[in-house]
Amino acid sequence: MNFVLYNPTRVHFGKGKIEKLKDEIKSGTKVLLTYGSGSIKKFGLYDEVLKILKELDCEVYELNGIEPNPKLSSVRAGVEICKKNNIEFILAVGGGSVIDASKAISIGAKSEHDVWDLIVKKYFPQDRVPLGAILTLAATGTEMNPNSVITNDETKQKVGFAHPPYTFPVFSILDPANTLTVPKNQTVNGIVDTISHLLEQYFNDTDNGELVDRFCESSISYMMEISPKLLDDLGNYQLREAMMYTSFVGLNGILSVCGGDWSTHDIEHSVSGIYDISHGVGLAIITPNWMKYVARKRPEKVIKLGERLFGLKKDGLNDIEFCDKIADEFTKFFKSIGVPTTLGECGINDERLEDLVDNMYMGDTIGGYVKLNKDDIREILKMCM
Amino acid sequence: MNFVLYNPTRVHFGKGKIEKLKDEIKSGTKVLLTYGSGSIKKFGLYDEVLKILKELDCEVYELNGIEPNPKLSSVRAGVEICKKNNIEFILAVGGGSVIDASKAISIGAKSEHDVWDLIVKKYFPQDRVPLGAILTLAATGTEMNPNSVITNDETKQKVGFAHPPYTFPVFSILDPANTLTVPKNQTVNGIVDTISHLLEQYFNDTDNGELVDRFCESSISYMMEISPKLLDDLGNYQLREAMMYTSFVGLNGILSVCGGDWSTHDIEHSVSGIYDISHGVGLAIITPNWMKYVARKRPEKVIKLGERLFGLKKDGLNDIEFCDKIADEFTKFFKSIGVPTTLGECGINDERLEDLVDNMYMGDTIGGYVKLNKDDIREILKMCM
Repeated sequence: MNFVLYNPTRVHFGKGKIEKLKDEIKSGTKVLLTYGSGSIKKFGLYDEVLKILKELDCEVYELNGIEPNPKLSSVRAGVEICKKNNIEFILAVGGGSVIDASKAISIGAKSEHDVWDLIVKKYFPQDRVPLGAILTLAATGTEMNPNSVITNDETKQKVGFAHPPYTFPVFSILDPANTLTVPKNQTVNGIVDTISHLLEQYFNDTDNGELVDRFCESSISYMMEISPKLLDDLGNYQLREAMMYTSFVGLNGILSVCGGDWSTHDIEHSVSGIYDISHGVGLAIITPNWMKYVARKRPEKVIKLGERLFGLKKDGLNDIEFCDKIADEFTKFFKSIGVPTTLGECGINDERLEDLVDNMYMGDTIGGYVKLNKDDIREILKMCM
Repeated sequence: MNFVLYNPTRVHFGKGKIEKLKDEIKSGTKVLLTYGSGSIKKFGLYDEVLKILKELDCEVYELNGIEPNPKLSSVRAGVEICKKNNIEFILAVGGGSVIDASKAISIGAKSEHDVWDLIVKKYFPQDRVPLGAILTLAATGTEMNPNSVITNDETKQKVGFAHPPYTFPVFSILDPANTLTVPKNQTVNGIVDTISHLLEQYFNDTDNGELVDRFCESSISYMMEISPKLLDDLGNYQLREAMMYTSFVGLNGILSVCGGDWSTHDIEHSVSGIYDISHGVGLAIITPNWMKYVARKRPEKVIKLGERLFGLKKDGLNDIEFCDKIADEFTKFFKSIGVPTTLGECGINDERLEDLVDNMYMGDTIGGYVKLNKDDIREILKMCM
């Protein structure tokens, strides 16, 4: 184990924590409020936020319409508002996409370089407009980490980046009540994303990460237990609370200390960069196929996971057969919560297979547990069709 | 769940991370180096640290001899050095005691009030001399939290306090290699302390903390598994690494989100305040007795723990009998690693029982899972004799 653990984000968790805005934002600040399609208006959160910002005598600018798989064009629009109006604070109200876009805006606004050059690490940020978040969808963990994923709408490249300490939110307000109205399909996507983060960190390349493994196993099995209950009872506060805690602990650094794999995310980014499918859907399709593929090279950890998570036993199967059975358990689970499990179901066939391979934002290989080159990625994508 | 999670400490974890001092401390800084009995001199760490501080052109002052169960007199001596010499940075090299004392020094040095008044919260700190730590003993988790425990050598009161954000170390260097020479008895104490912190957080008063419960169960069972191996092979890097990770994750805030009980710690502080026994020894004696006592008022979580951790089944026992059996498993474990399990074995009898009760630093009650008053505490102490 060899790591730096540093996470300066203040998380205010619980009912009514929106009041903390009054401590976190100085009165008279010029604020850029960022949000998505407007569900925050529908459910009253927008009015609550504006009321507090007004009490604080803030000058409020807005950037709305930030899309799922947030686009560079939205980020650039935000950067322009910030530069033109000397914005002093960005308040993101939304899910992962709104917060991710706002992270990119926050560094772009204080740089002389084009923000895309910061995202692809051609240049590095030296400053940022501070960012706070009010989370409305539990999934990505972005509320307490420095990560962001932005899609370049011209090139279709979808690129993940992190520029700590600049891209950490200063604070995040996590009130489970703000997630009670998240519709079923988005809740499903959040469940898949949370489980995927835990799997990515489980498949690290360390031989001394036993406690991290157990934390990941606990979290995955817990998510699998509560998911059907939550999907049957979307307005259940306790289940929303449990999911909110699990998803931020699932990617706030504590479980990343042994590294991780992240191939599934990398491949998914290529697919949703071109086809604009939901991140969660892409992950649900790729995960079991990735697992089957890498198990042929390195089965050990797949077997450990299957035995512990599902209580499966080899019973005379060879490693490959056993790992296939384990991967199928994930497919079965994803099906049970209503996610497509082939790209075909999303209307994607192998016509643009080479584009998908070429669209990968990568060096020679991806992956921490098993290194994959473009030929490997092509095979996994074929299995997903 | 209702909490703030904020932890700005940078943890540098891994072999050779002492080099990070060069990034963390500015050249020319006036540094107070704090340490304990001198084992850091014996094993070369002192020389390594001084070499780097010399390279950084730091002006170095020293406070050595900080004792286990660190005393107010040591803290006051440190505060005086800081004030007299305008110390700009405190570097604590040691275990929990050295770091705890240094936290108190760091706030005392920037206050006009007596440092004891800050510890007992008569006054509150407004500033601090920044503190960094090099950990040499995995146990208390103080390296990544704002907590400290100081004993007033005059009154014998042993008081735990936290003044976030002032009492967070700015950074902590966690190199498992620095713990390879920790002797057996201190390693045992560290094991008990780590397990105790996990138990304290397990016994919270929340009904929606299932994932926290599973994390605690995983961590406790993992510590119980590796402990006999480590005690047979004290120089094993991988086991030291595993213990170091477990002990800091065990008390860095992530598992405290549902609160905790902390009665065992409170009672132990009274005992070791008067008798100066090791914190770990005190905890090992009190834990199973506390568990038996509270199980008579609220058995549910004791039962859950026993079933999951030890795989025990009720098999016709009533709740009290079953909880006694579970508590006895802890006594059995503590005995197996060589800790005394009665106060009698430490030469403590009921002669000063009333002093022990009176020495408690408390309001009307202590405890989160079951509230205990002085009569309850007296009963538990009797059970420990």
